[in-house]
Amino acid sequence: MKKDFVIVLAPDSFKESMTAKEVCEAMERGIKKVNDNIRCIHVPMADGGEGTMQSLVDATGGGIYTAYVIGPLGDMVEAQYGILGDGETGVLEMASASGIHQVPIGKRNPLITTTYGTGQLIKACLDFGVKKLLIGIGGSATNDGGAGVIQALGGRLLDREGNDLGYGGGELGKLDAIDLTYLDPRLQECTIEVACDVDNPLCGERGASKVFGPQKGATPEMVKSLDDNLKHYAEIIKKQLGKEVENLPGAGAAGGLGAGLMAFLNGSLKKGIEMVIEYSGLEEKVKEADMVWTGEGSIDSQTAYGKTPLGVAVVAKKYRKPVVALAGSVGEGIDELYEKGIDSIFGIIRGVAPLEEVLEKGQVNIENASKNIIRLMSL
Amino acid sequence: MKKDFVIVLAPDSFKESMTAKEVCEAMERGIKKVNDNIRCIHVPMADGGEGTMQSLVDATGGGIYTAYVIGPLGDMVEAQYGILGDGETGVLEMASASGIHQVPIGKRNPLITTTYGTGQLIKACLDFGVKKLLIGIGGSATNDGGAGVIQALGGRLLDREGNDLGYGGGELGKLDAIDLTYLDPRLQECTIEVACDVDNPLCGERGASKVFGPQKGATPEMVKSLDDNLKHYAEIIKKQLGKEVENLPGAGAAGGLGAGLMAFLNGSLKKGIEMVIEYSGLEEKVKEADMVWTGEGSIDSQTAYGKTPLGVAVVAKKYRKPVVALAGSVGEGIDELYEKGIDSIFGIIRGVAPLEEVLEKGQVNIENASKNIIRLMSL
Repeated sequence: MKKDFVIVLAPDSFKESMTAKEVCEAMERGIKKVNDNIRCIHVPMADGGEGTMQSLVDATGGGIYTAYVIGPLGDMVEAQYGILGDGETGVLEMASASGIHQVPIGKRNPLITTTYGTGQLIKACLDFGVKKLLIGIGGSATNDGGAGVIQALGGRLLDREGNDLGYGGGELGKLDAIDLTYLDPRLQECTIEVACDVDNPLCGERGASKVFGPQKGATPEMVKSLDDNLKHYAEIIKKQLGKEVENLPGAGAAGGLGAGLMAFLNGSLKKGIEMVIEYSGLEEKVKEADMVWTGEGSIDSQTAYGKTPLGVAVVAKKYRKPVVALAGSVGEGIDELYEKGIDSIFGIIRGVAPLEEVLEKGQVNIENASKNIIRLMSL
Repeated sequence: MKKDFVIVLAPDSFKESMTAKEVCEAMERGIKKVNDNIRCIHVPMADGGEGTMQSLVDATGGGIYTAYVIGPLGDMVEAQYGILGDGETGVLEMASASGIHQVPIGKRNPLITTTYGTGQLIKACLDFGVKKLLIGIGGSATNDGGAGVIQALGGRLLDREGNDLGYGGGELGKLDAIDLTYLDPRLQECTIEVACDVDNPLCGERGASKVFGPQKGATPEMVKSLDDNLKHYAEIIKKQLGKEVENLPGAGAAGGLGAGLMAFLNGSLKKGIEMVIEYSGLEEKVKEADMVWTGEGSIDSQTAYGKTPLGVAVVAKKYRKPVVALAGSVGEGIDELYEKGIDSIFGIIRGVAPLEEVLEKGQVNIENASKNIIRLMSL
């Protein structure tokens, strides 16, 4: 190993155990115990899902802020948004304001759950002066087509009598007119990118209501009604805004929030891992490195599809850098990962232990595994 | 890695999961999946405890044979002995014939348990024509000073009336005379080495009865009686054979079998790992290797004291060969192992799983870990 060896540390978070930043720090501690001359560049990663805001803020030296917003059921919830280190890019996860984890199982009802709080988070970012917004949309409790977001930002969704619609996917059937007169004008100056890894259309067999409705509490009758309503919503959008979003890939993501963000806010959808790679600055850092380390709580046959370790490996391989991955759990059928650029994969668990203990010992285990990898490489 | 890279694979068994030979085979499968040009030399190891016979037989291409002998409680048990590849060295573990695992907990009573079956295994080896005998003495159910061994081999232990003593440490108090007239004469031509990692004397506070008696079922009263009996036994030995064994280090091993083997059969005690290193031919094989791999089910702070991975590492370091160790469980406080020659230690477990599953998946896990280590080394 040459004297000024540089390793980019670009792990995802280890769910329920460590943030990606904590993984980076534990990796560096292990590395430095063996060789203090190795330089470590931390690029905490994510894949557009949970942890994306935290990792992008950490990767860029930004900050996280708290806002009190209307939750999926209409009551107040505490939510967070991030501002990247550039000071003009906001990042948020819709689940922070409108997430399924905020609704007790017995109260899950996508006829009434709203994305209003997500709109408020967007507004908070605009208040901060952002020119760009990155939005992760996984884990939603809603099926409102993003109607709540528009309402929170000053748009009006009106019924035949000119009254504002209430919250939730159940209201959209009454939609008669859209009034964007008072839509927050700062949105004109703000580019919106949405991390989205599904390609479902808004309606129909593969649509939001049918595919994702049941896990949000929709009965078969509710699914039918929600699907009809989203279809009607898309028709009004087409008629009034001249935009055909119904069949766009990803329109059905997050209960149709994908469609809403594209229709009203000119949002563009991209794969979560690609967004994170771009805004974390991973590629520039990989260029100057001798090696890249990544990792995730679980690495398995799904990792080849849009997960962080593979995304990192693809960037690394563009510059022919070796890639090592660490994982708490290493599943079966992962040979594809070797073909796609991960050179070596190590589990970090050091024995049979209950899950709670393993989660608690994550950082020590990462540190030890890192130490032994560097020791092996130093032979 | 150079083209004709040679790796010596010298693991211990992974208890309850794989024999050392199976570990070697799994390591080689993983290695060969990455680089078919690497040559693997299998030296299945042990530390003188359970698995020693199997590993030495496997390391030398010998064979294992079954014998029906008298068990610790006097009933018949199936036991095994091995003949090394040279055809003239026998190897046996006393626990195979006289082991604590053969006595149900409620029946554990060192006043009556005998090493007779171990003597029968020695006889079976003599019948095979061995000139050397290696004996592992861990896991005994007995506290008879090896009296049963002598009886099985033709020696007579007589009471004041000239009657043969019965089985067990409880009988030794009656010992009045030793008659070795009919002791198997082939023992004269056979060198006996005993793998022994304890230095306890035969009697007293650190003696066999006091230290190991309770775990074999002895009550405090029994311990007293057993200790007195062994002291008497040592006195008769001294008087008749002119040998002072009472305070020799290791005399108290295996319920005094250490003393018996030294007194009657001229046995010499050595550390288990050293015996295995010598008879497995490890050193010659390490000389021609580029690297050495070892491993054990559990590697922890105890590994520095007479366990296989450290013994292997010491031999490897004599020839400056790098050492990698694999383990099912990697404990705390193992930094000493790095200082003593193990370069890198990897756990093989790939996630949170119940012990049974981990034991069952041992070979797959060894294979995968080996694969990833070679992949890392190939970068």
